[in-house]
Amino acid sequence: MDFPSFLTSLGTSFLIFVILMLLFAWLSRKPGNSVVYYPNRILKGLDPWEGGSRTRNPFAWIREVMSSTEQDVIDMSGLDTAVYFVFMSTVLGILVLSGLILLPLLLPVAVTDDSIKSSVTNSTTQVAFSDLDKLSMGNVKEKSPRLWAFLAATYWVSFVTYYLLWKAYKHVSELRAEALMSPEVRPQQFVILVRDLPNLPKGHSRKEQVDSYFKAVYPDTFYRSMVVTDNKEVNKIYEELQGYKKKLARAEAVYEQSKQTGKPEGTRPTVKTGFLGLVGKKVDAIEHYNEKINELIPKLEAEQKVTLREKQLGAALVFFSTRVAAASAAQSLHAQMVDTWTVIEAPESRELIWTNFKIKFFQRQVRQYVVYIVVALTILFYMIPIGLISALTTLDNLKKILPFLKSVVKMKAVKTVLEAYLPQIALIVFLALLPKILLFLSKAEGIPSQSHAVRAASGKYFYFTVLNVFIGVTIGGTLFSTFKSIQKDPNSLVTVLANSLPGNATFFLTYVALKFFVGYGLELSRIVPLIIYHLKRKYLCKTEAERKEAWFPGDLGYGTRIPGDLLIVTIVLCYSVIAPLIIPFGVLYFALGWLILRNQALKVYVPSYESYGRMWPHIFVRLIASLLLYQITMIGFFASKKFYYSPFLIPLPILSLFFVFVCNKKFYKSFAHTALEVACRELKETPNMGHIFRSYIPLSLSSEKFDVDQSEDDALSQASRSVSMV
Amino acid sequence: MDFPSFLTSLGTSFLIFVILMLLFAWLSRKPGNSVVYYPNRILKGLDPWEGGSRTRNPFAWIREVMSSTEQDVIDMSGLDTAVYFVFMSTVLGILVLSGLILLPLLLPVAVTDDSIKSSVTNSTTQVAFSDLDKLSMGNVKEKSPRLWAFLAATYWVSFVTYYLLWKAYKHVSELRAEALMSPEVRPQQFVILVRDLPNLPKGHSRKEQVDSYFKAVYPDTFYRSMVVTDNKEVNKIYEELQGYKKKLARAEAVYEQSKQTGKPEGTRPTVKTGFLGLVGKKVDAIEHYNEKINELIPKLEAEQKVTLREKQLGAALVFFSTRVAAASAAQSLHAQMVDTWTVIEAPESRELIWTNFKIKFFQRQVRQYVVYIVVALTILFYMIPIGLISALTTLDNLKKILPFLKSVVKMKAVKTVLEAYLPQIALIVFLALLPKILLFLSKAEGIPSQSHAVRAASGKYFYFTVLNVFIGVTIGGTLFSTFKSIQKDPNSLVTVLANSLPGNATFFLTYVALKFFVGYGLELSRIVPLIIYHLKRKYLCKTEAERKEAWFPGDLGYGTRIPGDLLIVTIVLCYSVIAPLIIPFGVLYFALGWLILRNQALKVYVPSYESYGRMWPHIFVRLIASLLLYQITMIGFFASKKFYYSPFLIPLPILSLFFVFVCNKKFYKSFAHTALEVACRELKETPNMGHIFRSYIPLSLSSEKFDVDQSEDDALSQASRSVSMV
Repeated sequence: MDFPSFLTSLGTSFLIFVILMLLFAWLSRKPGNSVVYYPNRILKGLDPWEGGSRTRNPFAWIREVMSSTEQDVIDMSGLDTAVYFVFMSTVLGILVLSGLILLPLLLPVAVTDDSIKSSVTNSTTQVAFSDLDKLSMGNVKEKSPRLWAFLAATYWVSFVTYYLLWKAYKHVSELRAEALMSPEVRPQQFVILVRDLPNLPKGHSRKEQVDSYFKAVYPDTFYRSMVVTDNKEVNKIYEELQGYKKKLARAEAVYEQSKQTGKPEGTRPTVKTGFLGLVGKKVDAIEHYNEKINELIPKLEAEQKVTLREKQLGAALVFFSTRVAAASAAQSLHAQMVDTWTVIEAPESRELIWTNFKIKFFQRQVRQYVVYIVVALTILFYMIPIGLISALTTLDNLKKILPFLKSVVKMKAVKTVLEAYLPQIALIVFLALLPKILLFLSKAEGIPSQSHAVRAASGKYFYFTVLNVFIGVTIGGTLFSTFKSIQKDPNSLVTVLANSLPGNATFFLTYVALKFFVGYGLELSRIVPLIIYHLKRKYLCKTEAERKEAWFPGDLGYGTRIPGDLLIVTIVLCYSVIAPLIIPFGVLYFALGWLILRNQALKVYVPSYESYGRMWPHIFVRLIASLLLYQITMIGFFASKKFYYSPFLIPLPILSLFFVFVCNKKFYKSFAHTALEVACRELKETPNMGHIFRSYIPLSLSSEKFDVDQSEDDALSQASRSVSMV
Repeated sequence: MDFPSFLTSLGTSFLIFVILMLLFAWLSRKPGNSVVYYPNRILKGLDPWEGGSRTRNPFAWIREVMSSTEQDVIDMSGLDTAVYFVFMSTVLGILVLSGLILLPLLLPVAVTDDSIKSSVTNSTTQVAFSDLDKLSMGNVKEKSPRLWAFLAATYWVSFVTYYLLWKAYKHVSELRAEALMSPEVRPQQFVILVRDLPNLPKGHSRKEQVDSYFKAVYPDTFYRSMVVTDNKEVNKIYEELQGYKKKLARAEAVYEQSKQTGKPEGTRPTVKTGFLGLVGKKVDAIEHYNEKINELIPKLEAEQKVTLREKQLGAALVFFSTRVAAASAAQSLHAQMVDTWTVIEAPESRELIWTNFKIKFFQRQVRQYVVYIVVALTILFYMIPIGLISALTTLDNLKKILPFLKSVVKMKAVKTVLEAYLPQIALIVFLALLPKILLFLSKAEGIPSQSHAVRAASGKYFYFTVLNVFIGVTIGGTLFSTFKSIQKDPNSLVTVLANSLPGNATFFLTYVALKFFVGYGLELSRIVPLIIYHLKRKYLCKTEAERKEAWFPGDLGYGTRIPGDLLIVTIVLCYSVIAPLIIPFGVLYFALGWLILRNQALKVYVPSYESYGRMWPHIFVRLIASLLLYQITMIGFFASKKFYYSPFLIPLPILSLFFVFVCNKKFYKSFAHTALEVACRELKETPNMGHIFRSYIPLSLSSEKFDVDQSEDDALSQASRSVSMV
């Protein structure tokens, strides 16, 4: 890509961003859109425009975001979101501190040398280069003493990263401790999940087995247990029932509406009873749905009874009367045979994956490894299509392969735009397909909670993107030429990577710019959700519940957001010394991201669960993985510059491994478990154990009748009744 | 070594064994020797000859041993010893089951082929071989279909090992659970060791810090704490005092004796006050020692006060009123910063290594890695001297280097004996020096208990012996010829090992035979301790305490015993298929060992601590390491036989790794921690917490005065007094 097309790309991106910003400023002030731009505030019962965001100033939201504290984020969006911002600001800090030294130091050193010019003059083949390349390390001559400056810069970036990551880990650990020791009663802090129950002794029920076991170990603090059941059947009936209830409400709303708009007695809506409501007999909708509901209610109740009595699985939730007891129980070994009675802290009730509870200990291990292998294979074999795309989508190649494009390409504007965007768009579309598969695979490992599955999927996605996008594109650009040399000697991968990095610098500059201008512009303006909401509201939604569903924002989705951000970190780190010009782009990405997402976190997104910052150790390890990749690439790059002192860089990766070892030893365990000194803090009120217990009863099992006490209908649980409340 | 010298070696070994057996039968029946042959029974207050071992039959002890149950061993010598016998009998089982199939299957297959004969006929160089070699796999021709039998045998040995090891691990796990749930009150089950206390907040004492911390987390079950002190100074004074007390008792005994033997008024013993009692003024011994003791007692008391008050370290023992509370506390994370307030189950008071308590978390990590590196270097560089010894001590070499030996060697008998024993003796002496160093290094890691240090040292010793003795000797025999080829290609190590194995078969046969005949003969007859005891009793011991010290047997010393046994296992396993004739020797080794050591465990040795079988996982892993070495060697050996189907063996090492993974997952954690279902069993009496607390006060700090209550004299502990008894 040459310099003009780079500027075009940058310019159009910026233009789009400005347009989207203005759109946001205009649209967000319309009262009808408040549910799209302020849903989190509305759901929390706050005034959407509190704090003056409805003033004329279109940048008021920036002032608001800047003045918000970490505590505000925790209050509005939970600890997980706050941790995400710690990540953003840490990376921002790393890039700013790096840039402050690297830009004034390296740019003059690079630009005053003339390796590229002379190589062009000397060599007979025409080497493609742009003005940007003059500002990079590629412009420094081989063996030049100027390389010392770049070597020092490599160290500087690493040490800045260590220092800020250490501070961030400590800070997140403190945040987590604070959240866990909060005086609020949070049900999940009183519950543990017990899996791998051994086979039932004859004549005992599961409940008796669990109760007698835990009563023996915790005579004072055991409250009661809930045996996990196979809810597939009951869930199906429940979903069906809920569906009919919704349809009934909708039919009634339509009927009401027709009274107002049409004839005063209204038109009773009708429905066809056949397939999808498209064929079959036409009947009165309200009556039909009422009939169906009345049919299903007794069916549901019968199925609930059957489920509770006969579909018990080898897992249980165990409730304790104190937080310390639960925290301690969740990390103690209970059975002599380690693969039975395994315990973990119970996740929040809303994020439990019930179907995974019944998977046994060794099956979980096997599944985990199988998934790892599948993912590894996917990562490796995706490189082939990515490499092909990258090689094909340079315009020159396209012209050769698809000759009919020639006439289109001849138009100057089209050509520039195509050249600027084509490879990037191909890449972005390509990557959009992946997270769902990875989440599915992670759930198949037998992970019991949604948040954990998201963490696992997110980790896999990171390695995927780095390997495929970064390394794949970098090498892919020169893939066909270098494929042979790699085949001859697989160890040359690092050298090849190092050699092909400078050539791809502008590609990644454009990629980063596109991501932040267009990506964040779309994010802030929420054009797509806005359009969808208005369409739905106009043509589909009849009841209040349906309308709420239409604007309900979902969560921040950091499962896919973080790997994306980490990819940018990897790219910027790897290029930071080679082409320091990328640093301002990185800074812009994280500064804009911080601003815009903080706005969204405070006003838009509603977290779907709270894992108390357990995402952080995953982020941390992957940041270090990026740093390692950067350091190893630099070693290769310095070697390719024939710099005699490049072995001076070898301590860096060792230092990184040492750093991750120390951090993990010092902090990690308190993310995997709840420290007892944290769990033993006073609560502001005596916990209502009945309430905590009920919060874990799945909706499909908690009809009005069952709501009072699950075990009342569990005929086998008579023995456990004596435990009762504290 | 040729066949006659092998038979000579075997014959002399057996002769020595028979003589030692007869000596034992004769000596052990003399009442004066009962303290040497039955010290464990005497110390337990049992009649040494109960069960008829004083009858005329010299083999009565065998019947006795055979009829003893596992429970007897546990009662007399503790669980650790019982686990040792599980190990012995498991290996015995593996070898017997292997031998039953391998001997009748492989020997005929091998002996009817004639690879060696033909190679001798064909080749011009004279290849040294003996009749024994005809019975080995070396006698089978390359690519012969007979190798299928050997391949099947390789699988059979592996599967027998898996099956019996699985059963053994399960059995040991049950034994451990039973011992831990025993209704006896054992102090160590109520105590945890807390290290890495954070810096003291101003104006607080250590005791306040620890007490308030644990009282907050365990309001109901915390009993009290004991802050660890730096006892170096007080120990020195205490030792000095004990020394003088001993000397006083001895002087008084001498005086009493002189009254009876010499003049009726007796001769008061004298002593010189100078260096070592050799120079200086002559004074009355009894008076002098009394004076010294009177001087030291107040000094000790003052130092005790200073120690308790001012020499507190950042570690503490915390006492709980129930076993469950202690077991749960020992495995829970207490502090948000993982490197503070680290907890482990407290070891028995008699095996605590107090000086290691103050070593901080990260320092322990660093020390551990430093020790690992030092040990790895030692293991690798010891190969050079061992290789030299093995190469030099063949008699032909010796004659060349030391020509004056020629005349000695000409005598037939001397020559045969020398040839048979020289290399083996050199090896055994060489190895005797090592365990002490390894134990010292293990303690330097910062391990807090004696038993753990012994486990760590023992593990290192195993790798040492296997690498140096087995691999070193095997390759060393052909070292100088193959050194070049290894240098060229380090991967050829396996091939070299496989090629040189058959040549060393007789060496190891002799080694095993020597070890069990002479080693176990000496063990059973206890000639050395007997002579030492009688010499001491006659010339040195004056008081009853001194006499007891002279015959006190010490423990089984399995820290060095197990690596030795494991070396035999490794050798026998590796040769089991190549030269199946080694199996009977292995069976004899473990059968004799089982018999003789069981006798010693029941009657002689007194265990110095009880770790509840925590040695087992170490043994298990090393057994699997032996098995892996065997499997990899076999792959190499089959490949060297140019057998096309040798890749059929590749699943075996993978299976072994899978097996060790499953076993560790299923069993290991309950060896590292106490399972709560085990700890929650009823005790037969309410534990006397005061007694438990006092059992952990080191002797040097518990004079009569301090015995009552450590904290009474701890001026800073006023605040904690309110906790008191349960």
